[in-house]
Order: sequence, then C-alpha cells, then structure tokens
Amino acid sequence: MQLGTIKSMQRTSFARMHCSLARGLDLIGDWWSPLIVRDLFLGVVRFDDLIEDLGISRNLLTRRLKALIGSGIIKRQVYQRRPIRYEYRLTEAGRDLVPAILALTAWGDRWARPKEGSPMLFVHTTCGHYFQAQVTCSACGEVIGRDTVKTIGGPGGAMKLGTIVLARRLRAAT
Amino acid sequence: MQLGTIKSMQRTSFARMHCSLARGLDLIGDWWSPLIVRDLFLGVVRFDDLIEDLGISRNLLTRRLKALIGSGIIKRQVYQRRPIRYEYRLTEAGRDLVPAILALTAWGDRWARPKEGSPMLFVHTTCGHYFQAQVTCSACGEVIGRDTVKTIGGPGGAMKLGTIVLARRLRAAT
Repeated sequence: MQLGTIKSMQRTSFARMHCSLARGLDLIGDWWSPLIVRDLFLGVVRFDDLIEDLGISRNLLTRRLKALIGSGIIKRQVYQRRPIRYEYRLTEAGRDLVPAILALTAWGDRWARPKEGSPMLFVHTTCGHYFQAQVTCSACGEVIGRDTVKTIGGPGGAMKLGTIVLARRLRAAT
Repeated sequence: MQLGTIKSMQRTSFARMHCSLARGLDLIGDWWSPLIVRDLFLGVVRFDDLIEDLGISRNLLTRRLKALIGSGIIKRQVYQRRPIRYEYRLTEAGRDLVPAILALTAWGDRWARPKEGSPMLFVHTTCGHYFQAQVTCSACGEVIGRDTVKTIGGPGGAMKLGTIVLARRLRAAT
C-alpha cells in the first residue's frame, strides 16, 4: 500500500524526486514530525500535552498535525463530544515509521545525547530486555555494517532528479 | 564518543531538548542532509555531482556541507592540488548514520515509492542477497514490531523541553 497524496510544502518539495528516501522525507514533512510521531507513539496524544512536551508553538503544531494527517501518517480521533475534542493517533504508515525513528534515536544516543546520559531507555517487551534499535538485513538478519551494502538500479530508477548521477553510474556498472 | 558542538540553526534549535532524537535531528540539520549523506555513502562525493544528482542550488549545498562538517558528520578531503579541489567523505558518525537512513528509505519504499517501483535496490554483500533495512532489537535480534516497545526514564531524563510530559509520566509509572 502507498500513501495517497504527496503534499508539496513551502520549502523545496522532494515529492518529484525519484528516490524513496526523498519522497519519504517529503511525506514526513519536517524535523518536528519525527518528534510528534515519537510522542504519539509514546502516548502523548493530545494537543496541549504535545505543546507542553515539545515546546512547539500552537500555530506550528496545528500546521504540522494537519500536514501529517494529509500525508496519511496520523489521524485524529474524537475523545470528547461537548465541547468536541480530538486526540491524535498514528495510522498504519505512522506506526511503521516508529522503528526508523528508534534507529535515529539510537544514533542520537550514540552521538548527541545529553551529558547526563540517555533521556529514555527502551525495553523490548517481547524479550524483556533493554535494547537499542539496530538496523539489520532482512535476508540474513545480520547488523548492517560499514561497507556491506551495494546498490543496484531498481525498476523505478530513472535518471531523474534525486538519482540522476546515481542512476547513470548504476546503469554504467551493469 | 559524542559529537562536539551542536550548532544552532536559523530554525528552532532542538539542541537544548532533552531528547536524543531531537538532538540527533539538530545535528543532522535539515531534510537535505540525509540525501547528502546517502549520496556520499553511495560514492557521489564531489560538489558538482551532488548538485546534479540532487538538483540542489549551489548556495544551499554550500551551506548544508558547511553545517554537516560543523556537526562532525562529514569531512572534506583534497583530491586535486592545482586548483585545489575537495571531495566530501562521511566521518565515523556519518557512516554510523547510514543504517538509520536505510531504515527511512525502506519506509519510503513501502509508503512513498515512485509508481515505477523502487528506484534503488540494496544488496547486502555479506550474505549476497537483496534486502530491505529492518529495525531489530539489540538484545534478542527480533524485528521491532508494533506495541513491543516500552519506555523507561533514563539517567538524562529530566523534565526539560522535549520530554517534559513524557518524563513526568515515566516518573509517575515507576
């Protein structure tokens, strides 16, 4: 399944790029979005709680929530009728984004963590242990290490913006 | 090891946030940066090739490269002396970021790929198979699935911007 519309944003849109990373980033929107997705994942799901947790302005949060709904990453849900109040939930695409965000968080823990130590620890409830998210190969399960990845032009690998030079080189190599 | 200075950017800086994800995102800089890191990883390492591949303006690329050097994610290297010419290489922190970017790319491949199919395929040279990056638990090696992650306040988990509400809830739960 693919998310419907790729919205163009005020900044340069990556939606036209022939690159799943660029198009994915375009759907996600901006740096606030991974933090919002993280908060929703962790149960901070109401507007005022998001404001307080992230210190984001009301205007900016409103815009970001709207964009994430438009991208199909989050949805809103009524939790109170009078007056009507919404909370925000991850869609399937949004929940699917969480592991990649955990991988980015693990990178942040290694290279940018506050001097007091990691702000948050993660427990994998399946095995019961503390863990860091690691990125592994879907074929053999090994951790993806330095210099163990080769790229090959895929079916959508046109020489278009986002992969012009790459696609040319990949084509030359085959 | 931790990266040195966290630069404040023109947009809201996340560097003050008590959250490894926010601080990591701040180091990375903006959406162009994952694409630049990807290109360097894939061997597109010269200024003009990056311009052509990404369709980014010269000014913006210059600024982004400078910021990534400042963050300690990339470094420049002389490849020609007369006239002097540089190419750009990932540092250890930069190479360490690649797996997380591959995890984001895999998400993009699932939810935002061009209709022609994935632009790029990845081969894990260790096992020789095509693969998608998946995010797994460092303790048991299983894929991180929906609803299998619990968070606990860590040593750096102050109730400060970025984790105010989360830290309070985590504290209440222990």
